Amino acid sequence: MGIDPALLEHRLDELYAIGAEPDGGAYRPLYGPAWATAVERVERWLKDAGLKPRRDAVGNLWGRAEGTDKGKSIVTGSHIDTVRHGGRLDGALGIVAGLTAVEALLKDKGKPRRPLEVVAICEEEGSRFATTFWGSRAITGAIDSVDGEIAAAMRERGLDPTKIASAAREDIDTFVELHIEQGAVLESSGTPLAVVSAIVGTAHLELCVTGRPDHAGTTPMDLRLDALAGAAAMVHAVESIAKSLGRPAVATVGKLSVEPDQINVVPGTVVFTVDLRHPDLAGRRALEERIRSLCGTISEERRLGLAIRSLQDKPPVAMHPDVRALLARAAKECGVQATELVSGAGHDAQILAARCKVGMLFVPSVGGRSHCPEEHTDPSHLELGVRVLVRALELLAY
Amino acid sequence: MGIDPALLEHRLDELYAIGAEPDGGAYRPLYGPAWATAVERVERWLKDAGLKPRRDAVGNLWGRAEGTDKGKSIVTGSHIDTVRHGGRLDGALGIVAGLTAVEALLKDKGKPRRPLEVVAICEEEGSRFATTFWGSRAITGAIDSVDGEIAAAMRERGLDPTKIASAAREDIDTFVELHIEQGAVLESSGTPLAVVSAIVGTAHLELCVTGRPDHAGTTPMDLRLDALAGAAAMVHAVESIAKSLGRPAVATVGKLSVEPDQINVVPGTVVFTVDLRHPDLAGRRALEERIRSLCGTISEERRLGLAIRSLQDKPPVAMHPDVRALLARAAKECGVQATELVSGAGHDAQILAARCKVGMLFVPSVGGRSHCPEEHTDPSHLELGVRVLVRALELLAY
Repeated sequence: MGIDPALLEHRLDELYAIGAEPDGGAYRPLYGPAWATAVERVERWLKDAGLKPRRDAVGNLWGRAEGTDKGKSIVTGSHIDTVRHGGRLDGALGIVAGLTAVEALLKDKGKPRRPLEVVAICEEEGSRFATTFWGSRAITGAIDSVDGEIAAAMRERGLDPTKIASAAREDIDTFVELHIEQGAVLESSGTPLAVVSAIVGTAHLELCVTGRPDHAGTTPMDLRLDALAGAAAMVHAVESIAKSLGRPAVATVGKLSVEPDQINVVPGTVVFTVDLRHPDLAGRRALEERIRSLCGTISEERRLGLAIRSLQDKPPVAMHPDVRALLARAAKECGVQATELVSGAGHDAQILAARCKVGMLFVPSVGGRSHCPEEHTDPSHLELGVRVLVRALELLAY
Repeated sequence: MGIDPALLEHRLDELYAIGAEPDGGAYRPLYGPAWATAVERVERWLKDAGLKPRRDAVGNLWGRAEGTDKGKSIVTGSHIDTVRHGGRLDGALGIVAGLTAVEALLKDKGKPRRPLEVVAICEEEGSRFATTFWGSRAITGAIDSVDGEIAAAMRERGLDPTKIASAAREDIDTFVELHIEQGAVLESSGTPLAVVSAIVGTAHLELCVTGRPDHAGTTPMDLRLDALAGAAAMVHAVESIAKSLGRPAVATVGKLSVEPDQINVVPGTVVFTVDLRHPDLAGRRALEERIRSLCGTISEERRLGLAIRSLQDKPPVAMHPDVRALLARAAKECGVQATELVSGAGHDAQILAARCKVGMLFVPSVGGRSHCPEEHTDPSHLELGVRVLVRALELLAY
C-alpha cells in the first residue's frame, strides 16, 4: 500500500515550525497560540484526507471515517502539545503517522468496516500547567472539575470548562499509537521497531540525610557527620541496585541539594530524589525496598539521620495482549521481526487503557535523545513505523 | 597572679550582645554599626586598663603600654568582626583575654621592659566583603589599593582609604593569640590546652563532571552517562583518601550542584568543590595529587568529562619555634602539659608571620562547634588559657 515518505517528513516539518523557539526546538503549550495554530493545521489535513473533524470539550481534535458496521471505533493518534524546547517527533509523529496511515487506507481500501478515527490529543506533557495526560484523562471521564487558571485558558480558545465531562467516550474499541522510543535500546541493539509490552510504573522518593555542619578545616575526618558523604554512598547504592537487577529496572537520582552548600563547611543536610521504574509492580516494589533498606543501613553506619518520603507511586500498565499480538503480526507481514519493549516513559495509552484496548509501536531514537532539538529518527524507520501502523489499522478496521 | 574569671565572662557577654541577631548568634561585619559599637567598647576597656588606645588607618584598634626599653613590641589580641550567626568566642576571646592579661600584668608587675600592646584586628572573617585577613594584611603592608565599596564603608567610619599604607608596622617583635580550637580534637582527647604548631595550608578545587542528560525512564542503566553517579563516586573517593591518610589531613566536598536537577532526568552536569588541608605542604600536595588522580580514573571508567580548576592554593604557615617553646614553658609553669596541635582554620597569625614571630594557644571547643551560637568553651578552660597567656606575655615583655 502506498504511503508517501516525503509527505510524512514534510508534515512533520510543518508542525515542528509551529511554536519554533529562537534557541532551538518547538514549544506548543496547551491552549497557547502555537498550540491553536497546530490544531488548525491538523484539522485542515484531516479534512483533506477525507475525515470529518470534530473538537471535543477539552480541546482534543478527532477526524472520523464512518464504518459500514456500527460499533466501537478504532483510534490512532498522539498528543499535539510539546515540552519547552521539544523535538520534532514526540507526539507529532503519532498524529502525522495516524493521519497518513488512515489517508492511505481510505484511498486504497475505501470505507472501513468499523469506524476509524485519528486523534490529536490536546495535552500529555504537563508542560504548561501542573497536569499531565489532560486530554486522555478527559476521554476516560476522569476530570470532574477544572482549575481556575486552566478554565480561563480554555475559554480563551472557545472551550467551555463546565462541559468537560462531555469529552468522555465509551465507544472506543482499540487505541494504537506510533511513538519514538525516547531511549537508546532499539538503536543500540540494531532493532528498527518494537511492540510495547507495558508502560512502567513510576515511584518518586525524596530522601533527606541529616548530619552536622562542621568547620572543614578544624574537624578531623573521623569526627565528622558528613551528610553529603553519606548521600554520595546512597547515590552509589541506588545506581548499583538498579544495575544489579538489570534491565528493565531503572533508578535515577535526578535532584540533589546541599545545606549549607559552602566550600569550607562540612555539609549538614542533603536532600535528593529517586525516580524508580519497573514494568512489573512486584519488581518495582522490590527495587524500592532494596533501596530503602541499603540507604537505611548507610545512614546507621554513618550515624546520620534519614527521612524517606514517597512523592508519587504510579502502578505499571500492561498493553492489551490482543493488540500486542496484532501489532507483532502486522510487523511480521511488513517483513520485520519486532522486538517487545517496555516503555520507560509515560504515554496516553496508559490512561486510555482504563476504557479500551491499547497498544503502541516504537521506532528508534537516534542517540536515545528526546525532549530536545536533537530528537531524531532515521526516515527509513519512520516509514517502516507508518507501514506497520497501516497494516495494523487494516487488520483492526477492515 | 590575679585575674578575675567573672570579669572575663562578663566582658565576653558584653561583646556577644553587640550585633546580636534575632535568630541567634552575633553578627559584627566590618565597618558596620555593631562593629563600630564593639570597637568603642573595647577602646573604653583599654583605657580603663591603663593602655593608650590608637586606631590605625584600616580600623585596627591598638592599646599600648610603653616599655622601659625602646624596641619592638610584644602584641596580643584577635579580630573583632564575626561571621553571620557568629558565636561568643571566635575572635572576641583573643581580645578580651589579651586585655585581661595585660591589665593583670600592669597591675601586678608595673611597667614592662618592652612595649606591650593589645590589638583588636578590624577584620579576619571575610564575612562582609570578599576579603579575609583585612586587618592583618594592612599591618603587614600587603594592601596597596582599596576597592570602591570597601573604601565607601571606611569613609563612613571616618577612615581614609588612601592612607591605608600607614597601618603597616615594622616594629612588632612577637604576636601571640589565644583562640578557641573550633574543632573537637582537644575535647575528644581530654586536653585542656594546645600550643599551635602550624596553620594548615588550604587548597580549593572545583570539579566539573559532564555526562549526558537523558530520560530517567527510557534510558537503561548501562547506556547512561550519569554525571551525579560519577560525582558521588568522586565524593566517596575524596573522603576515603583523606581518611586513609589519617590526621591531620582533611578533605571536604562542601558545595555541589546538579544540572538540570529534575526528578526524571539523568544528571548531565555536576559541579562540586573540594577543600583540602594539611599542615605540611608536601602532605597537602600528595593529598591533592591522589584526589586528582582517582577522580580522573573514575571519570575515564565512566566515560564522563572532568575539568578541575584550582580556586585557591595557600601554603601552610609554621608558628615560630621560639614562641612555640615559650608557650609550652608558660603552660608547664601553670601546671599544664600542653599538647601541640595544627590549626585547621586560618588565623591572623599566618599573615603576621611575614613580619614578626607568631604563636597561638588553643582552648577546647565543646562539641567542636564554632561559627554558630552553640560555640562554647568551659569557663575553667578559658581561665586556664588566660593564665598561660599572662605567663607567656610576662616571659616576653618583662
